Amino acid sequence: MRIAVDAAGGDHGPAVIVAGAVDGARRFGVDLLLTGAEAEIRRALFAHDTAGIDIVVEDAPETIGGDEQPAQAVRRKPRSAIAMALDAVRDGRAAALVSAGNSGAVMAGALLKLGRIRGVDRPAIAGYLPSMTGKTLVLDMGAVTDPRPSHLVQFAQMGSIYIERAFGVERPTVGLLSNGEEPSKGNQLVQETFPLLSIAPGIDFRGNVEGNDITRGIVDVIVTDGFTGNVLLKTAEGAASLINATVRRRLTANPFRTALAAMLRPAFDEARKDLDYAEQGGAPLLGIDGVVIISHGRSNARAIANAIGVAKRSVDGEVPDTIARLMATLEPAREPAAATG
Amino acid sequence: MRIAVDAAGGDHGPAVIVAGAVDGARRFGVDLLLTGAEAEIRRALFAHDTAGIDIVVEDAPETIGGDEQPAQAVRRKPRSAIAMALDAVRDGRAAALVSAGNSGAVMAGALLKLGRIRGVDRPAIAGYLPSMTGKTLVLDMGAVTDPRPSHLVQFAQMGSIYIERAFGVERPTVGLLSNGEEPSKGNQLVQETFPLLSIAPGIDFRGNVEGNDITRGIVDVIVTDGFTGNVLLKTAEGAASLINATVRRRLTANPFRTALAAMLRPAFDEARKDLDYAEQGGAPLLGIDGVVIISHGRSNARAIANAIGVAKRSVDGEVPDTIARLMATLEPAREPAAATG
Repeated sequence: MRIAVDAAGGDHGPAVIVAGAVDGARRFGVDLLLTGAEAEIRRALFAHDTAGIDIVVEDAPETIGGDEQPAQAVRRKPRSAIAMALDAVRDGRAAALVSAGNSGAVMAGALLKLGRIRGVDRPAIAGYLPSMTGKTLVLDMGAVTDPRPSHLVQFAQMGSIYIERAFGVERPTVGLLSNGEEPSKGNQLVQETFPLLSIAPGIDFRGNVEGNDITRGIVDVIVTDGFTGNVLLKTAEGAASLINATVRRRLTANPFRTALAAMLRPAFDEARKDLDYAEQGGAPLLGIDGVVIISHGRSNARAIANAIGVAKRSVDGEVPDTIARLMATLEPAREPAAATG
Repeated sequence: MRIAVDAAGGDHGPAVIVAGAVDGARRFGVDLLLTGAEAEIRRALFAHDTAGIDIVVEDAPETIGGDEQPAQAVRRKPRSAIAMALDAVRDGRAAALVSAGNSGAVMAGALLKLGRIRGVDRPAIAGYLPSMTGKTLVLDMGAVTDPRPSHLVQFAQMGSIYIERAFGVERPTVGLLSNGEEPSKGNQLVQETFPLLSIAPGIDFRGNVEGNDITRGIVDVIVTDGFTGNVLLKTAEGAASLINATVRRRLTANPFRTALAAMLRPAFDEARKDLDYAEQGGAPLLGIDGVVIISHGRSNARAIANAIGVAKRSVDGEVPDTIARLMATLEPAREPAAATG
């Protein structure tokens, strides 16, 4: 299996992406197709032991900036790293894409070049967040800011298939994010979605869950609109930063504390690793007819390596085909309006 | 000044509420009107030094549970602690209400007995969250799950008046919570609200902010819909719980670490206090023709005492009257449909 990696994406430059890709390829036993500035990629590769990994490098002379209008950028720049990596997936030269680049451009490019799975109205980004009991899948993380109730039902179905097929979670449970547990709670979208989820095939719906239930880990999959998903992810990141800064300030308030805290450094490092988003790997764009893994722009090499693991699991678990099979069985029952998406 | 306190509210019982009320009354120099089960209140009062504090106790034989339909409960139970405390505010026997009870019942009761300020379409809950630079006011925290753009503009105006009048923040800055900084980002509500905020009188609008900007503290006031506000508050609480549990587990993984961590306990306690919601006091229900402070159901005595401070600041700063004056100047320009709220 060969995984395409957008070596131009991410905030830390090609060297970090290449380091993660090589590490991931070795750990998960896959080959690589790297797109980006070829000279930089080859220079980065030179620093690593790549024996036994089949690596193809494709030079991508065009670059897509973080502030470009995504759909336009992908159309106008066919020789960009994202576009060329997606071409490789479409043409079967790679089994999946991992990118830490402009996520809007990855989504637009994936829709353009790989297309939606028949029956899926809106692809969604499915991200794992750490929880007390392991991890909780939350979708959508930002692809669809104003979904319809029927879209949230598909998010629940796709998320359940993903963690069952890629991570072996048996009969995953699903919660609907709301501002209270009772079925009567929620904004209009949530109140309209609740009854649809209650009768939706292919999922084990457990009712409404609240913001603090994400880290409590009481269900395997939590569905929400992409606006709320994006806000809650960033709010949790911000809370973690504030706690980190506050504890650090108090632990270094005098030399005695600083010395003690230094001796406890391994414990803090372990805790940080427990909670690190990089350990969760990348987030798949579910509903696309292919495996596309979106990584955080701030991804370090470890995060990229883990994202390659997520890509391999998704390919091995035949996630897109499994979603397509479920959607095919539901197709006749679906409302005609929703199919135009 | 006398503050009415709902001694029946909160998860920890009347003794905790009374302890906080007495402490707050002493610290902030106010008198008290306590509503609830009189025998319990008097027993709780007996445990404290109340010299110099004028305390009126009103027996409220009816109780409102956390799961009752709020508006019905307040109407059907005029002798409940919430209803009687609101009567006292309406009749001028108390200057403000502090309640840690069923927040839906407090909101419904406040609307029923005190009414909305003329020109305000939807009262909003304004909560302070800790940030790197101090604290950030977020509203709405859950009163209005599906606001219109014009409601968010009023939230911005009311929140700015509140922190300027009650906390002396000069020319407060306002951000609109979105899933990206660019004006083009956001769900439909946010995209429609952005241009209205850009020209709204009485506020200093600084554009979109993201979830992690809440704790970064880059603006003084952040406006969002009550659904998102509730989710982000609980998500931050959940993230804090997970981080706390994870660090604690790693710090007690062996006897050596446990001993060192015990010596650092004061530092951790200080950090916890820095971040404690109780230090922020209660959250005012802005847009009501009176001062109503909603406290977390989990409030300890310290949180109740601080909520009394927030109530006094709101009364001293004439927050409702100042909001009313701004709304009166805007009244003629407002869209007729919005006035029916």
